[in-house]
Amino acid sequence: MLKIRVLSTGKTKEKWLEEAIQEYLKRLSPILSIEFLFFKNDHQLEAQAAKESSLICLDPNGKLLTSEDFASVLRSSLVKGGSRLTFVIGGPEGLTEELKKHPLISFSRMTFTHQICRLILVEQIYRATELEKGSKYHK
Amino acid sequence: MLKIRVLSTGKTKEKWLEEAIQEYLKRLSPILSIEFLFFKNDHQLEAQAAKESSLICLDPNGKLLTSEDFASVLRSSLVKGGSRLTFVIGGPEGLTEELKKHPLISFSRMTFTHQICRLILVEQIYRATELEKGSKYHK
Repeated sequence: MLKIRVLSTGKTKEKWLEEAIQEYLKRLSPILSIEFLFFKNDHQLEAQAAKESSLICLDPNGKLLTSEDFASVLRSSLVKGGSRLTFVIGGPEGLTEELKKHPLISFSRMTFTHQICRLILVEQIYRATELEKGSKYHK
Repeated sequence: MLKIRVLSTGKTKEKWLEEAIQEYLKRLSPILSIEFLFFKNDHQLEAQAAKESSLICLDPNGKLLTSEDFASVLRSSLVKGGSRLTFVIGGPEGLTEELKKHPLISFSRMTFTHQICRLILVEQIYRATELEKGSKYHK
């Protein structure tokens, strides 16, 4: 079983977001689980990040990947982390200098809300697993 | 009153998406309305697109914009179109050759679902209006 963690600050509980994410988590559940951890501030998030074995940070200025690139990064990072991988979504002030030392990837040059970032991340993880399977989901 | 139209194929009625989009439409309602038109196929979508005065197509291979760039494109296109502007979200087969002659913009090099594209579009339109106001929403 693959285990992914997502660290971010500022918990939000929009019902629509929970519904959308739950749908993907359900589909992913046979092979992969995703745990969301929320922190009060960057300092606490950084402390947790330091304990994680394989870490990728999302940053608008990070490397722009296609969904295929993302699937490939996901696979190799999960191998490196022994089936564990952690993503960090930066707060409104962006990532701390310490976190910027980790691999940085970008979904877009646009600024998205936290909520939309979380949704995209979960959907791209699901898309990556479908890509591996060669299903029709990704074409 | 500014009027934006979004043309796409394949109507989807996910409850979470409607909720999320409604929230932004409500916030935008004093200055701007967004109408979603759905078509059965590319041919019908293209026929409607030909009638629109100012058109922008979303394409993963289009120009990558920041949120600030997007706000600027939005403003100038609305001026050009006499307060009217139409966006096209391509279907799973991508945009037709005819549609590719219009300005093409990209949210990401990644492939997103239709639903997520629609959500991002509405959120970026809202963000653009907040940017113009100089509010704290975008920072």
